[in-house]
Amino acid sequence: MIKDIISNNYPISFKNKGYDFLKDIIKKNNYSKLFIHVDENTNKYCLNHFLKHFDILKIIKIESISGEENKNIKSCLKLWKLISDKGGDRRSLLINLGGGVITDMGGFVASTFKRGIDYVNIPTTLLSMVDASVGSKTGIDFGVLKNQIGTFYDPKVVIIDPDYLDTLNEKEKLSGYAEVFKHSLICNKHVYNQLIGLNKILIDYKIIHDSITIKNNLVLKDKFEKKERKALNFGHTLGHAIESFLLDSKKKLTHGEAIAIGMILATFLSHKLCNFSRKNLELIKTHLKGLFGNIHFESKEIEKIIELLKHDKKNSHGKVNFILLKEIGEPVYDVEISKDLIIESFDYYLS
Amino acid sequence: MIKDIISNNYPISFKNKGYDFLKDIIKKNNYSKLFIHVDENTNKYCLNHFLKHFDILKIIKIESISGEENKNIKSCLKLWKLISDKGGDRRSLLINLGGGVITDMGGFVASTFKRGIDYVNIPTTLLSMVDASVGSKTGIDFGVLKNQIGTFYDPKVVIIDPDYLDTLNEKEKLSGYAEVFKHSLICNKHVYNQLIGLNKILIDYKIIHDSITIKNNLVLKDKFEKKERKALNFGHTLGHAIESFLLDSKKKLTHGEAIAIGMILATFLSHKLCNFSRKNLELIKTHLKGLFGNIHFESKEIEKIIELLKHDKKNSHGKVNFILLKEIGEPVYDVEISKDLIIESFDYYLS
Repeated sequence: MIKDIISNNYPISFKNKGYDFLKDIIKKNNYSKLFIHVDENTNKYCLNHFLKHFDILKIIKIESISGEENKNIKSCLKLWKLISDKGGDRRSLLINLGGGVITDMGGFVASTFKRGIDYVNIPTTLLSMVDASVGSKTGIDFGVLKNQIGTFYDPKVVIIDPDYLDTLNEKEKLSGYAEVFKHSLICNKHVYNQLIGLNKILIDYKIIHDSITIKNNLVLKDKFEKKERKALNFGHTLGHAIESFLLDSKKKLTHGEAIAIGMILATFLSHKLCNFSRKNLELIKTHLKGLFGNIHFESKEIEKIIELLKHDKKNSHGKVNFILLKEIGEPVYDVEISKDLIIESFDYYLS
Repeated sequence: MIKDIISNNYPISFKNKGYDFLKDIIKKNNYSKLFIHVDENTNKYCLNHFLKHFDILKIIKIESISGEENKNIKSCLKLWKLISDKGGDRRSLLINLGGGVITDMGGFVASTFKRGIDYVNIPTTLLSMVDASVGSKTGIDFGVLKNQIGTFYDPKVVIIDPDYLDTLNEKEKLSGYAEVFKHSLICNKHVYNQLIGLNKILIDYKIIHDSITIKNNLVLKDKFEKKERKALNFGHTLGHAIESFLLDSKKKLTHGEAIAIGMILATFLSHKLCNFSRKNLELIKTHLKGLFGNIHFESKEIEKIIELLKHDKKNSHGKVNFILLKEIGEPVYDVEISKDLIIESFDYYLS
């Protein structure tokens, strides 16, 4: 049996242990209504697996449309209305079964419905297992910008059940792997050494547990992202801007694909400004490009991506702050970067 | 100098002491941007008075349209966009200058913009001074239901400056007085005795301070409304339903007018079920009808109002729970009421 990971006020609990915990809180809290929030994919491929763990469970299904482009206020309005129309009240429970869109948006809806109801996250993608479901961040996109509107709001439990990963295609697994790799980069040389030599992705219980533990430790140290938690943003400053920029285009990327590019760019900047070794820089570029392939950017596109950086949530006082690395496992916080150097990092990526 | 009232994590501070506190936190926090949120009325009548207290203050004005009918997600989208477009980031401060619509909605916008920025409330109406600005509740209306969407989120400070009351007409002052009177009913026989004999409203520094203190003490005991705080809901179960029902009609009521009716109804129910004295019931009806006048309700309208009760935020498990009184200052929690008795209470109100 895999050990629970204890976050701020709730456990991240694996497989049957997680389902048992959920049964317990449902029993203890005598919820007025139980809602399960799915998208068309998790409705089809995951809901039955979830329900299998419960003998009797009177539960109301509410559905969102999958895709980052639907992680918006319009979908929230639909969810608030569904919950309200189906008799939800402040003593109801919302269970989010899905990827990051479902857990982030469902968490936001739970945190704001009647000033906050209980919720549970059951991530079904690798990305949401190791990233979105840990750390109590909820959110939706606003305009072209990701997670602009959101809250900090703790779930009652996060259930990790790797069986759901069988429902994913390779592209989706890869997308989550980018975060697994990032966690090793910023925090754990040992895990990094396991991953860097491989020309395929490694996903097993142990890596998932390690990866969540890394993120959770940072969250425990610094819930509101004053310092240590910022390290999780490695590769994300440019990665988010790239993801936002390409969202409506033919070159639309998965989160992991965008972050993989962002990590190569940030590692280059780390080499330039923080003495990060050339050798590791090359290894990381080779590893990530081998897995994620190459994306081409025109100069004009790079200009527009840099323009988008201004709106990064982590900014303040008009400055764009980067997380860089001194070496594997040693982040450097709040580094300001010139536009020229960013352009240079894209040149390195493209070379 | 009037003593601060200390709430959970922030002070409710009067006049110059409040402005000085605000100056201090602005200095200490080195905010990236300062925003002031007004409506067309507080822009015209209150903003200059506010600015007078600051020698130099680089502040960005953002405006909402006044009125409960604009306390909705559409107005929030406008505010989020304005703050974002004008360079707001997670280190910005939002100052809400206005009545309950401005402070509730501004609080909600602050609590959700980039997962929460600092905010300050400066209530300009009697109602928002004694009610909306104390207790960290933020919210907007959703559909026909009040405050369905919202958060618990502490301001940095609430500034009470009764000078703003000079900008109100009598109807607006009356609306706030309903809450002042309610606070006395549920908590303080001494204040009740001061008010009940008068055939006009009493508003002075002392009554405002007493009234906020009553509410604040309940909030301190029970922030998340598990028990004691529920007493604040006296008169509001039916009051809210009446207010919602008449929102789009010719008979549209102020919050205070609706709550005054709700209090007469709830006092009648208290008499019927909790031995509340007939004498005080009559005194309260006379006092409130003398100040707020009479509203007529058709049987059909009463049916529809009772229908709306189902959606009260305070409900759970499909039951509508009322706060009643054993006597002045002695609330009884979670009383279930039959439909027939509610109809009877309307008959009493109309008689």
